[in-house]
Amino acid sequence: MEESRPLDTLNQSRNKNVMVDLKNNYRYIGKLIAFDIHVNVVLADATEYYNGEEKRKIGTVFIRGDTIIIITPA
Amino acid sequence: MEESRPLDTLNQSRNKNVMVDLKNNYRYIGKLIAFDIHVNVVLADATEYYNGEEKRKIGTVFIRGDTIIIITPA
Amino acid sequence: MEESRPLDTLNQSRNKNVMVDLKNNYRYIGKLIAFDIHVNVVLADATEYYNGEEKRKIGTVFIRGDTIIIITPA
Amino acid sequence: MEESRPLDTLNQSRNKNVMVDLKNNYRYIGKLIAFDIHVNVVLADATEYYNGEEKRKIGTVFIRGDTIIIITPA
Amino acid sequence: MEESRPLDTLNQSRNKNVMVDLKNNYRYIGKLIAFDIHVNVVLADATEYYNGEEKRKIGTVFIRGDTIIIITPA
Amino acid sequence: MEESRPLDTLNQSRNKNVMVDLKNNYRYIGKLIAFDIHVNVVLADATEYYNGEEKRKIGTVFIRGDTIIIITPA
Amino acid sequence: MEESRPLDTLNQSRNKNVMVDLKNNYRYIGKLIAFDIHVNVVLADATEYYNGEEKRKIGTVFIRGDTIIIITPA
Repeated sequence: MEESRPLDTLNQSRNKNVMVDLKNNYRYIGKLIAFDIHVNVVLADATEYYNGEEKRKIGTVFIRGDTIIIITPA
Repeated sequence: MEESRPLDTLNQSRNKNVMVDLKNNYRYIGKLIAFDIHVNVVLADATEYYNGEEKRKIGTVFIRGDTIIIITPA
Repeated sequence: MEESRPLDTLNQSRNKNVMVDLKNNYRYIGKLIAFDIHVNVVLADATEYYNGEEKRKIGTVFIRGDTIIIITPA
Repeated sequence: MEESRPLDTLNQSRNKNVMVDLKNNYRYIGKLIAFDIHVNVVLADATEYYNGEEKRKIGTVFIRGDTIIIITPA
Repeated sequence: MEESRPLDTLNQSRNKNVMVDLKNNYRYIGKLIAFDIHVNVVLADATEYYNGEEKRKIGTVFIRGDTIIIITPA
Repeated sequence: MEESRPLDTLNQSRNKNVMVDLKNNYRYIGKLIAFDIHVNVVLADATEYYNGEEKRKIGTVFIRGDTIIIITPA
Repeated sequence: MEESRPLDTLNQSRNKNVMVDLKNNYRYIGKLIAFDIHVNVVLADATEYYNGEEKRKIGTVFIRGDTIIIITPA
């Protein structure tokens, strides 16, 4: 584990539900389908929240990495 | 699917309608014609919305990637 | 069209009038003379608008790419 | 020690508890599992604080580097 | 002209007077002596304006590119 | 001295006390242990100040470079 | 002079007094000792000003390039 990298650990969440918090107080919860070194992320079956309140079901969503603060298991 | 990348999944929306949400509360809905690794995007037959309200029909629009937050199927 | 890129489609507007919207609510309308991968842009015979109001004729203008939000045909 | 680099010294905190302060006044305390040259960080058994107040237990968290201000031993 | 680039067209203004508008509402008018790919710029015999009002004569000025919005002939 | 670079001069402060001022009005004073080309910095035996007032002793601190404004001898 | 670059012209101010204006309304006046391509700068015998008012003598100061707006001869 001494040599593990953040994207390797993120890979363990692939095809599992994650919670993605953005700089604009939006949160997306959905299945982690894809990500890259810029931390661009794609979620499937996603739901959008704003300030903790559910806003809409959005299916698949591409999230640009520079807007992301944290990603946690959901 | 273990190895899929965000831009690959975005590619599945080519020539389909997508919704692009920007940092300045503008939203563009149109047919996804082109995109690149910076997430610069070109939409055709696009409509512009501001804070959820339709503003204008703008035909083709080039959107600079660093202003984009999310892209979803429309 | 499957493989088209945003800068290729922008190239179709060369020597035509375009509308360039900036992050600071300025808009420039003029003939698209040049652009590069940073989306730096040069317009000829340009007019400057602020919050939708015409401010001045400025002839040729070099616009730094990181201030640009969208480019549309004018 | 003349030649030590910041990421080398950060490596000494691996598998130990650290406190990560973000630009949005959030703080995460947890075990440092992974980091990279962008200072993307993964913590295990993490707790989230906002303005000094505990908000929630979040288990594993991936933190995007560009949101981080400082990292200190906890 | 099909292949012209923004920095090529900027080169045509070398040793001529230009107006450089910054993100902080400052403007500098002076002779364009030098520029590079980051759009860092050096003006000679420059005058500084703030919100349209002349502030001071500053001779030579080095302007960091990331603060620049537009450059126009003066 | 004609050829000296900023990081070379910073190197002269290694293992000496420095004052690091951040964009968020925090200041850290401690012994400069490590730095890199991104100006990421590690201080030992550091003290944290906010708006000029001492807040806490924090021992070792890793400071992400993009939050730093200036570094001066303490 | 057709080919001069901004950093070449900045080099002519080495070991001379310059005025460095930052994005946070701070200004530093001192002898230009070193700079690099990121426009990181080191001044010797520097004085710090805030909104035009002298604040303190700070001797040598390392200034991170991304906080700098302009550099002028002092």
